[in-house]
Amino acid sequence: MSQIPYKIYLTEEEMPKAWYNLRADMKNKPAPLLNPGTHEPMKPEELAGVFCEELVKQELDNTTPYFDIPEEILGFYKMYRPSPLVRAYCLEKKLGTPAKIYYKFEGNNTSGSHKLNSAIAQAYYAKKQGLKGVTTETGAGQWGTALSMACAYLGLDCKVYMVKVSYEQKPFRREVMRTYGASVTPSPSMETEVGKKILAEHPGTTGSLGCAISEAVEVATTTEGYRYVLGSVLSQVLLHQSIIGLETKAALDKYGIKPDMIIGCAGGGSNLGGLIAPFMGEKLRGEADYRIIAVEPASCPSLTRGKYAYDFCDTGMVCPLAKMYTLGCGFIPAPNHAGGLRYHGMSSVLSQLYDDGLMEATSVKQTDVFEAAETFARVEGILPAPESSHAIKVAIDEALKCKETGEEKTIVFGLTGTGYFDMVAYEKFHDGQMTDYIPTDEELQASFDKLPKMD
Amino acid sequence: MSQIPYKIYLTEEEMPKAWYNLRADMKNKPAPLLNPGTHEPMKPEELAGVFCEELVKQELDNTTPYFDIPEEILGFYKMYRPSPLVRAYCLEKKLGTPAKIYYKFEGNNTSGSHKLNSAIAQAYYAKKQGLKGVTTETGAGQWGTALSMACAYLGLDCKVYMVKVSYEQKPFRREVMRTYGASVTPSPSMETEVGKKILAEHPGTTGSLGCAISEAVEVATTTEGYRYVLGSVLSQVLLHQSIIGLETKAALDKYGIKPDMIIGCAGGGSNLGGLIAPFMGEKLRGEADYRIIAVEPASCPSLTRGKYAYDFCDTGMVCPLAKMYTLGCGFIPAPNHAGGLRYHGMSSVLSQLYDDGLMEATSVKQTDVFEAAETFARVEGILPAPESSHAIKVAIDEALKCKETGEEKTIVFGLTGTGYFDMVAYEKFHDGQMTDYIPTDEELQASFDKLPKMD
Repeated sequence: MSQIPYKIYLTEEEMPKAWYNLRADMKNKPAPLLNPGTHEPMKPEELAGVFCEELVKQELDNTTPYFDIPEEILGFYKMYRPSPLVRAYCLEKKLGTPAKIYYKFEGNNTSGSHKLNSAIAQAYYAKKQGLKGVTTETGAGQWGTALSMACAYLGLDCKVYMVKVSYEQKPFRREVMRTYGASVTPSPSMETEVGKKILAEHPGTTGSLGCAISEAVEVATTTEGYRYVLGSVLSQVLLHQSIIGLETKAALDKYGIKPDMIIGCAGGGSNLGGLIAPFMGEKLRGEADYRIIAVEPASCPSLTRGKYAYDFCDTGMVCPLAKMYTLGCGFIPAPNHAGGLRYHGMSSVLSQLYDDGLMEATSVKQTDVFEAAETFARVEGILPAPESSHAIKVAIDEALKCKETGEEKTIVFGLTGTGYFDMVAYEKFHDGQMTDYIPTDEELQASFDKLPKMD
Repeated sequence: MSQIPYKIYLTEEEMPKAWYNLRADMKNKPAPLLNPGTHEPMKPEELAGVFCEELVKQELDNTTPYFDIPEEILGFYKMYRPSPLVRAYCLEKKLGTPAKIYYKFEGNNTSGSHKLNSAIAQAYYAKKQGLKGVTTETGAGQWGTALSMACAYLGLDCKVYMVKVSYEQKPFRREVMRTYGASVTPSPSMETEVGKKILAEHPGTTGSLGCAISEAVEVATTTEGYRYVLGSVLSQVLLHQSIIGLETKAALDKYGIKPDMIIGCAGGGSNLGGLIAPFMGEKLRGEADYRIIAVEPASCPSLTRGKYAYDFCDTGMVCPLAKMYTLGCGFIPAPNHAGGLRYHGMSSVLSQLYDDGLMEATSVKQTDVFEAAETFARVEGILPAPESSHAIKVAIDEALKCKETGEEKTIVFGLTGTGYFDMVAYEKFHDGQMTDYIPTDEELQASFDKLPKMD
C-alpha cells in the first residue's frame, strides 16, 4: 500500500467505465411510477413522449447492475473528472479529532456541482436519438448551468425555464447559461399555454419550480424534436451519479481504506444516491457494512419528518406519481439558502432504502450549516455550497464524537459543489441576519392531508 | 514517452521544490527601485518598514537563481497544486487547426486565480517574522480574496482596503473575504490620515486603487506588528509565481513536448512573469528559443504604447519609483472588465526583457476578448476570467494562422482564472452593451508629460 496523498486522483485507466444501478441489488425494489390518471404503472410508451428512449429504459430497469458509459461521455468526463477525493488533514487538525476525514469534491467544474454528471448523460442520449434540443426548469440555476454546458458541448439546443424571482434576483447564473448558448426564459412566461393560464390567474406572480416544470414539459411534448430532462429525483439520474461513488470507492480501495460512514446532503437525492451507490451495493449483497447518513435541512425534512406515500413529483401535479418520503407536493419550504435541498420529496430508490432501515437520516439547522461551512472554508480553502455544507456539518459532528471517544473512524462525505453564487447567503450569515425555520407539526399535517388518495 | 493525457498533473514527487529567480540569468538586470525623495536606490532598511525582511531580500536579490520553497508553503500548495496543464483538444477541433494548444489552468482554487501563489508566500514570511497581520488594497477583489485565504490558513490578521465603488457594487467578493475572516474596509475611510484627507477634499468620492494603496501602506507602517503586501508588479511576486512556469515546464518535459510559443495576459506582470520564467531562463542562457507573447488590453497598453521610464508604482505617489513601461501613474484607463489588467505600469523585470527584445507584446480589444472567452467556454467547459481571456484571444489567433499555413505549432497559454464574479461583464457582452475604448495619442502624451523628472 502506497502512502496516502493529500488528494487521491484516479488515472484514466482506473476510471470507472460503467455506471452502477443500485436497484439491481435491492431486494425491495423502489415502487413504480404511476400514471396520475389511472394509478397504473407508467408504461415505456407513455414516458417516451417526455423522455428520450434510452433514458426511459434506464428509468424503468430495476435489474441490470451495470450500464456501460458511452465513449463520448467518457470523453466529456475528461474535462472535469476524475474529481479528487481529498483527505481533510487541515480540518482534522483544526478539530483535534483522531477521525480520518475524506471528501469527494464535485465542484471543480463550471457548473459548480455534481449536476454535470447527469446533464451530459441526458444530453448525450437526446443527441443520439437525433433530437434538436431539450427543455428543463431551473430554480437557483445549478442544473440549468450544467445542462447548458453539456448541450453546448454536443451542439444541442437548450431551453431553460427559470423561476422568475431567481431570473431577476440571480442574474449571474442566468448569464452563465447564456454564455453556454442556452435560451433562458423567466417562468411563468407567455410562451406556453400553462404559463398564459397562470399569468391570467395570478398576474404579477414571481413563479415557482412547479410552474417552471409544467412549462418545460409542455414545450418538450409539443415541440418537434424536443424532450424534457430533469436533474434529480429520477432513478436514471442516480444511475448517472453513481460515477461519484464508483470513483470514491476506487480511490479508497487503491489505498486499502474502508470507511466507517458515508455522509451526503439530500434534496431530491441525486448526489447522495450517486455517492453511496457502490457502498450500499456491498451492504445489500452482505459483503460489507457502512453507516450511511442522509443530511437534510430542518426546513425541508422529507426523510426525517415526511410520509412514505405516493405523491406528485411536481407542484403543478402534471407529472407521474412516485412513492417517496414526501412533505406533500404543495409544501412550500420557508426561504432558505440551500435551494438545491428544497424539494418536497426524496428519490424513490433512497426512500425505499431508508424505509428498509439501510440508511440513516438527520436534519440540521441553517445557521449551524453556515458555521460549519465557514470553519471548513478557512482550513480547507474551498468555499462550499450551502447544500454541500449540510454534509460538512454532520461530518464535523461525527468527527467531534470521535474526539470524545478516541475512536479513529474513517468518515467520507460528499462535497457536492462551490458557493460562488451563494454569497448573498454568506452575507446574511456574516451580518447575523440569517434565520432558522422549522415547520410545525400542524403545517406538515395540513400538507399531508392533501396527498393524493390512493385506493 | 507515454501517451499524452487530456490533463497533465504532476505527482507530489515531480512538483518543483524551489522558485526560480529569472533575474539571476538576465544580463541586463531590471533597474533598481528608487527612493522618490532622493532618487537613490531603495535600501533594505528603507523597505523593511513596509515589507517583511525575507521579502525585502527576495525583492532586491538579482543573482540567486533558486529559492527553496518552505515546507509550510509546499503543504499549502497541496490544497490546490499542482494545477493541471490541459491539452485543448476540443478547442483545436472547433478551430480546425493543426496547432497543438495547451493551457495551464490556475483557476481551480477559491480565490479563482493564480494570485494565491504569492499570497501564501507573503503571508508565510509575515507569520515567520512573528507579525500579527498584513494590510493590502484590492480593486475587484481577487488579490484580497487570495490573501484572506492564506491568512486564514496561517492564523494571521488580514486588513483589506477595497476601492469603495467595488465594495458597494461587487459585494460577493467582499463576502468571500469576510468568510475567510478578513476585515474589509471601503476606501477612502476615516480610519487613516490619508483617507480623512481625501474625504475632506473630495467628499463623496468612490475611491481609487491609488488611494487604497496609500491607506493600506499607512496602516502597515503605523501599526505595531503589521506589514504591507502587494499582489503584482514586484520582483518577489514574479519569483513566487514562477511555480506556474516550473510546473508547466515539468509537465511538458514529462511528455517531451517543446512549445513554439508561450502566451500570457499581462497587467502588472505577475502571471506572465511566472508562466514564462523557466522558458525565458533557457532563452537567456541560450539553451532554447521560444516566442513569448504578452497580451494586454487595448484600453491600457503599457508595453505596446507606454514609455520605458521611472514612474511611481501608485497613483498616490507615496511608493518608490520603478523603471517600467508605463502609461503614467496618473493614467486612468477607461472602464473595462478586465480589472486585473488595468495597472498603469509593467513589472520592471518584464519591462527590461521587453526592452531587450526578448519578448513580444500585443494588445487586444475588449469585445474580441469576450468573443474568444465564449468560444472557449463552450468547448472547453471552463468559464474564463476576462483577464485570462486576453491570452485565449491571441492563442486562438495564432492557432488560426497555423490553420492557414498548415503548421503544427505547439502553443501554451496561461489560463489565470475563472470568471464567476464577472458575470456583469458577460451580461453586457450578451446584450451588445459592451464597448471598446482605445486611448488617443494625445491622452497618452498628456499622461507622459506628468512622469517624474529624473536628472
